[in-house]
Amino acid sequence: MQVTRGQISLFLCLLSCASSLGTRYTPDWASLDARPIPEWYDEVKFGIFVHWGVFSVPAFGSEWFWWYWKGAQNPNYIQFMTKNYPPGFSYTDFAPEFHAQFFDPDEMADIFEASGAKYVVLTNKHHEGFTNWGSPYSWNWNSVDNGPHRDLVADLGAAIRKRSLHYGLYNSLYEWFNPIYLSDKQSGFKTRDYVEKKAMPELYELVNRYKPDLIWSDGDWEAPDTYWNSTGFLAWLYNDSPVKDVVVTNDRWGLGCYCKHGGYYNCADKFTPGKLPDHKWEKCQSVDTISWGYRRNMKLSELMDLPSIIKDMVYVVALGGNYLLNVGPTSDGMIAPVFEERLRGIGAWLKVNGEAIYATKPWRVQAENATVPVWYTSKSSTVYAIFTSNPMQNSFTLSAPKTSNSTVVTLLGSPEPLKWAPLHSSGLIVLLPDLPFTPADAWTLKLDEVA
Amino acid sequence: MQVTRGQISLFLCLLSCASSLGTRYTPDWASLDARPIPEWYDEVKFGIFVHWGVFSVPAFGSEWFWWYWKGAQNPNYIQFMTKNYPPGFSYTDFAPEFHAQFFDPDEMADIFEASGAKYVVLTNKHHEGFTNWGSPYSWNWNSVDNGPHRDLVADLGAAIRKRSLHYGLYNSLYEWFNPIYLSDKQSGFKTRDYVEKKAMPELYELVNRYKPDLIWSDGDWEAPDTYWNSTGFLAWLYNDSPVKDVVVTNDRWGLGCYCKHGGYYNCADKFTPGKLPDHKWEKCQSVDTISWGYRRNMKLSELMDLPSIIKDMVYVVALGGNYLLNVGPTSDGMIAPVFEERLRGIGAWLKVNGEAIYATKPWRVQAENATVPVWYTSKSSTVYAIFTSNPMQNSFTLSAPKTSNSTVVTLLGSPEPLKWAPLHSSGLIVLLPDLPFTPADAWTLKLDEVA
Amino acid sequence: MQVTRGQISLFLCLLSCASSLGTRYTPDWASLDARPIPEWYDEVKFGIFVHWGVFSVPAFGSEWFWWYWKGAQNPNYIQFMTKNYPPGFSYTDFAPEFHAQFFDPDEMADIFEASGAKYVVLTNKHHEGFTNWGSPYSWNWNSVDNGPHRDLVADLGAAIRKRSLHYGLYNSLYEWFNPIYLSDKQSGFKTRDYVEKKAMPELYELVNRYKPDLIWSDGDWEAPDTYWNSTGFLAWLYNDSPVKDVVVTNDRWGLGCYCKHGGYYNCADKFTPGKLPDHKWEKCQSVDTISWGYRRNMKLSELMDLPSIIKDMVYVVALGGNYLLNVGPTSDGMIAPVFEERLRGIGAWLKVNGEAIYATKPWRVQAENATVPVWYTSKSSTVYAIFTSNPMQNSFTLSAPKTSNSTVVTLLGSPEPLKWAPLHSSGLIVLLPDLPFTPADAWTLKLDEVA
Amino acid sequence: MQVTRGQISLFLCLLSCASSLGTRYTPDWASLDARPIPEWYDEVKFGIFVHWGVFSVPAFGSEWFWWYWKGAQNPNYIQFMTKNYPPGFSYTDFAPEFHAQFFDPDEMADIFEASGAKYVVLTNKHHEGFTNWGSPYSWNWNSVDNGPHRDLVADLGAAIRKRSLHYGLYNSLYEWFNPIYLSDKQSGFKTRDYVEKKAMPELYELVNRYKPDLIWSDGDWEAPDTYWNSTGFLAWLYNDSPVKDVVVTNDRWGLGCYCKHGGYYNCADKFTPGKLPDHKWEKCQSVDTISWGYRRNMKLSELMDLPSIIKDMVYVVALGGNYLLNVGPTSDGMIAPVFEERLRGIGAWLKVNGEAIYATKPWRVQAENATVPVWYTSKSSTVYAIFTSNPMQNSFTLSAPKTSNSTVVTLLGSPEPLKWAPLHSSGLIVLLPDLPFTPADAWTLKLDEVA
Repeated sequence: MQVTRGQISLFLCLLSCASSLGTRYTPDWASLDARPIPEWYDEVKFGIFVHWGVFSVPAFGSEWFWWYWKGAQNPNYIQFMTKNYPPGFSYTDFAPEFHAQFFDPDEMADIFEASGAKYVVLTNKHHEGFTNWGSPYSWNWNSVDNGPHRDLVADLGAAIRKRSLHYGLYNSLYEWFNPIYLSDKQSGFKTRDYVEKKAMPELYELVNRYKPDLIWSDGDWEAPDTYWNSTGFLAWLYNDSPVKDVVVTNDRWGLGCYCKHGGYYNCADKFTPGKLPDHKWEKCQSVDTISWGYRRNMKLSELMDLPSIIKDMVYVVALGGNYLLNVGPTSDGMIAPVFEERLRGIGAWLKVNGEAIYATKPWRVQAENATVPVWYTSKSSTVYAIFTSNPMQNSFTLSAPKTSNSTVVTLLGSPEPLKWAPLHSSGLIVLLPDLPFTPADAWTLKLDEVA
Repeated sequence: MQVTRGQISLFLCLLSCASSLGTRYTPDWASLDARPIPEWYDEVKFGIFVHWGVFSVPAFGSEWFWWYWKGAQNPNYIQFMTKNYPPGFSYTDFAPEFHAQFFDPDEMADIFEASGAKYVVLTNKHHEGFTNWGSPYSWNWNSVDNGPHRDLVADLGAAIRKRSLHYGLYNSLYEWFNPIYLSDKQSGFKTRDYVEKKAMPELYELVNRYKPDLIWSDGDWEAPDTYWNSTGFLAWLYNDSPVKDVVVTNDRWGLGCYCKHGGYYNCADKFTPGKLPDHKWEKCQSVDTISWGYRRNMKLSELMDLPSIIKDMVYVVALGGNYLLNVGPTSDGMIAPVFEERLRGIGAWLKVNGEAIYATKPWRVQAENATVPVWYTSKSSTVYAIFTSNPMQNSFTLSAPKTSNSTVVTLLGSPEPLKWAPLHSSGLIVLLPDLPFTPADAWTLKLDEVA
Repeated sequence: MQVTRGQISLFLCLLSCASSLGTRYTPDWASLDARPIPEWYDEVKFGIFVHWGVFSVPAFGSEWFWWYWKGAQNPNYIQFMTKNYPPGFSYTDFAPEFHAQFFDPDEMADIFEASGAKYVVLTNKHHEGFTNWGSPYSWNWNSVDNGPHRDLVADLGAAIRKRSLHYGLYNSLYEWFNPIYLSDKQSGFKTRDYVEKKAMPELYELVNRYKPDLIWSDGDWEAPDTYWNSTGFLAWLYNDSPVKDVVVTNDRWGLGCYCKHGGYYNCADKFTPGKLPDHKWEKCQSVDTISWGYRRNMKLSELMDLPSIIKDMVYVVALGGNYLLNVGPTSDGMIAPVFEERLRGIGAWLKVNGEAIYATKPWRVQAENATVPVWYTSKSSTVYAIFTSNPMQNSFTLSAPKTSNSTVVTLLGSPEPLKWAPLHSSGLIVLLPDLPFTPADAWTLKLDEVA
Repeated sequence: MQVTRGQISLFLCLLSCASSLGTRYTPDWASLDARPIPEWYDEVKFGIFVHWGVFSVPAFGSEWFWWYWKGAQNPNYIQFMTKNYPPGFSYTDFAPEFHAQFFDPDEMADIFEASGAKYVVLTNKHHEGFTNWGSPYSWNWNSVDNGPHRDLVADLGAAIRKRSLHYGLYNSLYEWFNPIYLSDKQSGFKTRDYVEKKAMPELYELVNRYKPDLIWSDGDWEAPDTYWNSTGFLAWLYNDSPVKDVVVTNDRWGLGCYCKHGGYYNCADKFTPGKLPDHKWEKCQSVDTISWGYRRNMKLSELMDLPSIIKDMVYVVALGGNYLLNVGPTSDGMIAPVFEERLRGIGAWLKVNGEAIYATKPWRVQAENATVPVWYTSKSSTVYAIFTSNPMQNSFTLSAPKTSNSTVVTLLGSPEPLKWAPLHSSGLIVLLPDLPFTPADAWTLKLDEVA
C-alpha cells in the first residue's frame, strides 16, 4: 500500500494537531512547525496581494520609497524629491495626500472576486510603519488619524468577506525608521522596547480586532525570532487567539526562519522552486514587475501580461504552491484599469479552467515537454494537463499519463469528449479541436481515469 | 468611361486649386470649400487625439469638468468638490497641480508611433481657455506661466515630427468663462472684442509659431462664423500662412457650419455615417467612452477594448473616413498603461494589416454580410476584405468581389496564397488556414485582381 | 495788497476751471495741468495707503517680490524660493494661497477711520498685474477668479465710504511680466497693444465701476506718456467720467512726468521737499520702512514708531503736503496689530491735535528752532506750533509769531489759556503746564490772533 | 528678635535639604514638598513663556484648537474648518505647514533677553502631544520628523543659554487624543499604559537630554498623581537627575495637587492671590489675553498693552511671585512685532527700574493707596515704592515707610536725591521731579534706610 501525502498529513496530525485535540502548542519551533496548515489554504490556490500605504502617494520607484530615499540615499529618489518638492519636505508630508477618495470597498472586492482569487491579503502595515487602521500604538501615523481618515483594513475586509473570500493581513515586523526599533537595533537587539511597546501589542490587537485568516509576516530579517517573540506570538495565535483554528501564516518570523519555520513557506520574494517541495509554499508576484506599490510612471513593458501571469500561476500550482498576485491601488483608492484587465482576464480563464487549479494536488509528474510544454495537476484519478502556448496543430501528445479503457479526454470549456489513442508503454495522442480564442493563451486537457 | 473620385478631385482642382496655381482663396465659403484637402490627410487614415489640460488635474467626470461644475452646476461635480476641496477652491487652483513631471515627449511619441497612427492632434487649448504653450494672449493661464512651466505644444510637437508623423492642433474658439467672450455673447455677438483681442491674435500666432499640419477647430457653435472671422482666417491660412500648402482643417467654424463648410467633416462628436459620404470625413472617438480627458476613477468597463477599436477603425476607413482615437494623458504626463496597451495593440495589428488601411480608398462596396461581417477597402485592382470576428470555420464566402483567372487571395500575415473558388455570377469561397492568434480579433483577406 | 495763495487759485480757476464752466480740458498737459485740484484733497491731509496683492502671500522681501526673484534674480529671493518651495513653483502658484479669509471690510475700515485718516488708497493692481477685482481684462489673474474669490476693491470701498472717507485706487500702468507689455517694450514702445487691449480698457472700466475719488497712478516710468495715452485718459477723466468733479490724481503718467504734470505731485517714493513747494504734493510713506506689502518676517526695528510717524506727518503738513501712510494687510486679510497700534495711536493724537492738521494751510513760516524744534500750520489768524519732543522745561519760546493784545495761547487738549509774554520785535514766551502723557510725544500750541 | 523669611528657609533647609546633605528624597509629598526651591528662581522674578506647536498653524481661537474643534465640537471651530478646509482635513494635516522657516534662535533669544526676562519656558509638548524635539516616543508626531524638521527645544535652548538665561520646559502630562491615554482614562485610570510607555519614558528622556532648569508641568488634572507616577518622577528628578541641584518645578502633578504640592505654585492659570502667600508662586499671563498660542486674527484690543503688563508684573513681584509672560511665535518662527514691542518695552522699563524687581523680597507692607496706588518691594533696608500711574502733582505721600535721619529717597533713573519730609508717626512726603516719559507709565521711588 502506498501512503499518500494526505495520509501522511493525517498521521502527523495525530501526533501534533494539538489544538483540535485539546493539547496545546508550546512556544518553540518544534511544536509550532508541527501544526498542520488549515485545509482551506491549500485549496484556494490563488490570492490577491494588495500593497497600499503612504508609499502610494509618491508612487514612484517602489513601496520602498522611503528607504531608498532616506536610508539608501539612492540618487534617483533624492533627485525625484529635489526636483518635485520643497527642501524640507518629509515622508510624513505625503500622508495628507493619501486621500483614498474613490475607494469603494465593494468595487475593489468585485474586481478581486472576478479574478477568481479566493483570498486577499492587504498590507495592514508596511515597513514605513503606517497602519491602515487606527492602531493606538501608531497614533497619528495611521489611516484613521491621517490621509484617508478611514479604517481601510476593516472596510476592505468587510467587502472581501461579504464575497466569502478569505482575508489575510500583511504585517511588517520592523519599521525602518521607528526610533525605538532603531535603538533596539543599535543595542544589537539586546533591548526589546520596540517589540514590547509597539510591535507585539499592535499585532495582538490586530488579530483580536480583525480576525485575519492569514498573517503574512515580513520585515523580520534583521533580528532573530527571539527578539520578535515570534514563537510566543504563534503559540498564542494557534492556542488562544480568536482565529486559532483557521489562521494560516507564512515563514518570515526572524533571521534564518524563512524556508524553515512557521506555516507555509514564502522563502524569498518571488521565490519559485525548481521541483516539487515537500512543504506547502506560496509564490508572491506583482503584476508590476518593478514594484508592489502603485507607481504613477509605470509603463506597459514593465507589467506582466495575462499569458505570463497564467503561465506563472499554472507552474506554481503544478508544484503545489499557492499564487499570490499583487496589485497596488492608487492613493485615490482605485485599481488601475490595466490591473483590472489582468485580474478579470485571469477570472475569465479560471471560469473555464478553474477546475484544473482549485483544490487540486500536484500529480506524480509535474510537467513534461509534450507537443508544447505541459503542466499537470490532479484530483484523485483525474489529471489536468495545462498548456500555455497554442500548439498550432491538431494532434497533441502526452507521455506521462497511463490510460485505461475508461479514460476520457476533454478540453475544458468544450462539452464533447476528444478522440485519443494510447501510445505504447505510456502516454496518449489526442485529437484537438479548434482551440477557442482566449487572451490568456492557455488551455487544459482533462484526463479522467488515468494513472 | 467611368469617372473615378480621384479624377473628379483633379478636375475640381483645375477649377479651384488656387494656391498652387497662383490664384487666391477669397474669404467666403464658396471659395474656401473648393480647396482640395491636401493628399497626406486621406492617406494617413489613423491619428491620435490628445486631450490634455487643467481638466487633467481633477481628472473626474470629463474634460468638461469646469462647465459641469460651475456652468451646469451638475450635482455630481458640486458634490465632488464639496467633498474633497475647501469651500473657496476654484478651477484656477487646479493649475498649480498640473505638474507633468513625468512627461517625456519621446516616450509619449514612441507610444503614438507604435500605434501605427500617422498623425497626432494635441489640444492647444480646450474650452477652459488654458493654452498648452505660453500664449501672450493668455497670460498666467497657460502651461508656461502655470503648472508644467513648459511649452507642451512645442515639446510634444518636436517629438512627433522627429518620427515623421503629422502634427495637428486642436483649438477651441470659445472659452466658457472668458469674461470678454461672455460680454460679446451677452451682446448677441454684436461686439467682437473677444475675437479681435484674444481668439484670432492667438490663433494666428499659434499657426505662425507651431506650423501645425492640421487645425482641429472646435467650440464654435454658439456664434456664427461671421463672429469668429472664420472665412478671413481660413483665407489667410490657405493663402499666406506658413502652412498654406499642407494644412488641413475640419468643419467647426461657426453655428451651422459643421457637415457643410471647411475642410474635412467631423460633424458631431463621434458621428459615424451609415453609408459612404461624398466628402472626406473623420470620426473622433475616445478609448475612455465617457471622457476625452483623463479620469482618475475610470473603470475597465467604461473603456473600449482592442477588438472594438479595430472594428470601429475598419468601419470608418471602409466608409472613407479617418479615425482619430483619443487618449488623455495624466496631469503627471503619463499615458496610462491601459491606453498604452490599446495603442500598441492597434500597432501590432496594423503591422500585419496596415496595407488594408493606409492609403486605401473605399471600394465600390463598403461592407457585406459574408460568412461573418466584412468591410472592404481597396487600392486600384486590389481589394481588402476585413473581418472582425473569427468565423470559426474553414471556408469563407464573399459575394461582392468579381474574380478573374488572375485573382490571388492571401491572408495578410501569411505568405502562401489561399485556395479559393469562384461562385456563380459573382463572389468566391476561400479556404481559410488556422487564423493566427491576435488580441485584436480581426483579420484581412487580400484579393488581388478582382473587380 | 498781498495776494494769497487762495486768491491765486481762484484767479487760475477763472482761466481754467473748464469743467465747471462748461469748457473742456484738451488732451495736453497745458490744459490738464491747469485743472485745480478738488478742494477736499487739500483739506484731508492724512490718508492710508493699502498695498495688498499676491505679493502678500510670500510676504517676504517686499511687494516687488516677483521682480526681485525673476526679473533682477536677486540671490536672496532665489534662495528663499529654493529653500522653501519645489523647483517648478511659480509666482502664479502663490495666488491660491491668497485666502483673505479673515478679511472683514468693516473691521479694517474701523481701524483706518480710527487713525484719523480721511482717505484710503487701495492697490487695485500692482506691477504684478493681479487685480483686486474681477477685471475682465485680467481673466484668471484677479481676486475674484483666484485666491480670495472676492471683489476686494468693492468690499473695502463700501466700508470706507460708509464712514465718509474718500476712496482712492492705486493703479500700476505697467505689468512687469505681461507678455504683451513686454512685446511693446521690445518694439521701443512703437506698438501699443498692451495699452489698447489691456491697460486702458481696464482703467476706464475701473473708473466707471468703482468711481474712485483719487487715482494713484504708478508704474509709468519705462514709457512716455504718449505711449500710455495719459493725456487722453485724463481728459476723459476730467471731462466725462463719473468722477470728473471730485477726482484727484497724482503725477505719474509717463517718463519725465513726475514732479511736473498731472494732479498733485508725489515725485519719487517717500520724496520730502526741503522747503515749501509751490504745488500741492503728497508724501507716501510705509510704516514698514522696508516694504509696502506685508512681510511675514518684519522686525520691530524696521518699523516706524508712533513718534516718528507723527513727526513725519507734521513736517509734511507744515510744508503743504498730504501724508499717505501705508500698511500692508496679510494674505489672511488682517491688519497686523503692530500696524493697528500705530494707526490708533495717530488717531488718538489727532483727536486732540487734529485741528492743527486738517484743513490747515502752511503758514508764512513753516518751522523754527524754538525751545525745541517747532512746525507751523495755520487757519486764517490762528497759528499752530507743533513740537515733537518734550522740552522738559516750563517756559517755551517762539520767535516767529507776532502777537497782539488779543492773542490767546492754549495747549491743545487743555482748556485754560496759558500765560505768555511778548518778546521784543517778535515772538513770545509761553508758560507750559505739565504736558499730558502721549505715546506720540508731540503737542500743539494754538495761537489765536497772531500774525 | 524677629525671624525673617530667609531665616525660616534656612531652618527648614536644615531639616530637609536632603540633596545637598546627602540624604535623599522619598517618593511622597511630605518629603518632596520639603525640598527648598533653588534660589535662582526667586531672584529672577520675570520669565517668558513660549507656546509653540502645531496649533500655531491654524492659529485660530487658541492653542486648544484641536480640543475645541474635535473634543468640544465648538461651532466656531467647526465652522472655521468647514469654511476653509476640505472635509477630510485633520489636525495632523496642519503639521506639514509648521515650517518655522524664519526661526532664528538667536534673534528670538535676543528679543527675550531684551525684555529683561531671566528665564524662558518653551512648550516641549502641549496637550496635542506634538513634541518640539525628536522624541522617540512620539514618532512622526514631532518637530524633527514633521514640519520644521528641526529640534526646536535644542535650538532655542542653546540660544537662551548662550545669553545666561535659565531655560525651562513646559510639559503636558496628558495628550487629549492619544488613544493609549484614552484607553487608560476609560479604565478609570486603573491601567497605566500611557504613563509607562509614553509619558514617563519621554519625560525622563527630555530631562536627560535637555537638562532643563525648570519643568512646567501641566495637563495633570484628569488623573491622580499616583496615575502619573509624579512622586516617583520628582524623587528621581531631585535625587538623581542631571539637574537635581538646580531644577525648579511647579505644582501641577495630579488631580488636587495644585496650590498644594510640588515646587512653586501656579494654582490655576493666571491665578493672582489677594494677599502675600506663604509659598513661592508664579503668575503666568499671556500678552494675547485670549490665547497662549499665536492667533492670525488677533486684534489690538485683545492684547495687553505695556502699562498693563508692568502693572501686573509689579503686583505679582510685590506679593512674592514670579511673572511668566507668554508670547506665541508664528508657525513661520517669528515673534510678532506687536509682541516684540511689548517685550522690548518691559526691558526698557526694567533697565531703569529692574533693581526694584530682581532679587527683591516682599516688604512687610505690599501695597498702599498713597498719592496714587503704590506697590512695595525690598532688599534689606532698602524699600522700593513703585507707582503705575502718573500722580500729576509734585508731592507724593507714602504712609508705610518709617524714615530715619539717614533715609535717602531717589527716583530710579535720576541721579539726585529727592527732597522729602517725614510725616508724624510714620510715612513721608516726597518732592517729585518732572517724571521722565516712559510708555510703561510706571516709576519707582527708592527709599534707602527705612524700616
